[in-house]
Amino acid sequence: MESAEAAGFFRITRWVIDAMAWRERLGFAGGDHDTNSDMVAEAFEAAGAYVMGRRMADGGEVPWGEEPPFRAPVFVVTHRPRQTLVRNGGTSFTYVTDGLASAIERARAAANGKNVAIAGGGTLVRQALAAGLLDELDLHVAPVVLGTGMRLLDTGPDIGEFEAIELTPIRVVPTPPVTHLRYTVNGRAPLGSDDRGGGTRP
Amino acid sequence: MESAEAAGFFRITRWVIDAMAWRERLGFAGGDHDTNSDMVAEAFEAAGAYVMGRRMADGGEVPWGEEPPFRAPVFVVTHRPRQTLVRNGGTSFTYVTDGLASAIERARAAANGKNVAIAGGGTLVRQALAAGLLDELDLHVAPVVLGTGMRLLDTGPDIGEFEAIELTPIRVVPTPPVTHLRYTVNGRAPLGSDDRGGGTRP
Repeated sequence: MESAEAAGFFRITRWVIDAMAWRERLGFAGGDHDTNSDMVAEAFEAAGAYVMGRRMADGGEVPWGEEPPFRAPVFVVTHRPRQTLVRNGGTSFTYVTDGLASAIERARAAANGKNVAIAGGGTLVRQALAAGLLDELDLHVAPVVLGTGMRLLDTGPDIGEFEAIELTPIRVVPTPPVTHLRYTVNGRAPLGSDDRGGGTRP
Repeated sequence: MESAEAAGFFRITRWVIDAMAWRERLGFAGGDHDTNSDMVAEAFEAAGAYVMGRRMADGGEVPWGEEPPFRAPVFVVTHRPRQTLVRNGGTSFTYVTDGLASAIERARAAANGKNVAIAGGGTLVRQALAAGLLDELDLHVAPVVLGTGMRLLDTGPDIGEFEAIELTPIRVVPTPPVTHLRYTVNGRAPLGSDDRGGGTRP
């Protein structure tokens, strides 16, 4: 990770690092026991397995240490095969080379009926969204504008010019350091001249 | 406007077109009298003058018609001089060629103590944000992912790699077709290794 990118990353994930529920999972003392910590705890508890991109998995390998916070099987989407990495506390990293849908399928089988969480990065989230593989989308909006870094949903020519992926907002949790937005994914819909609405434009 | 871009534009502004308060200002019947209409009415009532980019002003010229919805002076930031356009109902378009700060200054003088609203587009909003000229930022998040179009805050090398513009969320209004987020702008802050928080990364 470039250092400017890292600085931005730590800024927008500060609310996670400050959360007691996150710190507990990493064996750190302290942290805030507040709504944001509850959000972290809820997300961990809901997930029976994780899917993530190779870049995220590699980036986390050292800082997550011998006992990563997931405590569940993690399936890493990658083009480069690697032997499964078994960590303490229930976390394992299985490297899946036959695509996202396969990784999700394997995670589904391992999740014991709980949710499969696409942990990131953004490229993988967009890929899942575009492929109709996402049921819900959680956005955590930090109140900061950066001058550099990756954009969420930035990559991929996988949504057509005249179509949209429609969502339904189902929960908003506002807190000072971050606004949590949850959507269900309705799927693809065409964009057309109907969208002119009342026959005028704003 | 390219037609794919137009289709996306109409999709994300559908909540405005559906709002009774917007339709009334354009002389159209009907529309929804709901929270989103109240948001439109509130925004119109709070603004004593507007600043907008030339592309937005030109794009609106025909559809807004002889009696545009602003009912207040509009200052258009442009490199191409043009004579002031006076419309019915209190709206005028004054073309300002000496920059955004000057346009805001002129709008401030014309606003009778009310707010100056930067109406858009995104390039102008980012420019105002980066220049420290914005006190509040209103985001209206439509629940849809598009495959094309301009990004908000996309343009300009005007925020450094190791700095951020910090905001404070002050209001969230959730509705099914759009989530309204309001922020105050705190200003620039450095991004640094402090942002590593507890010494780890998520």
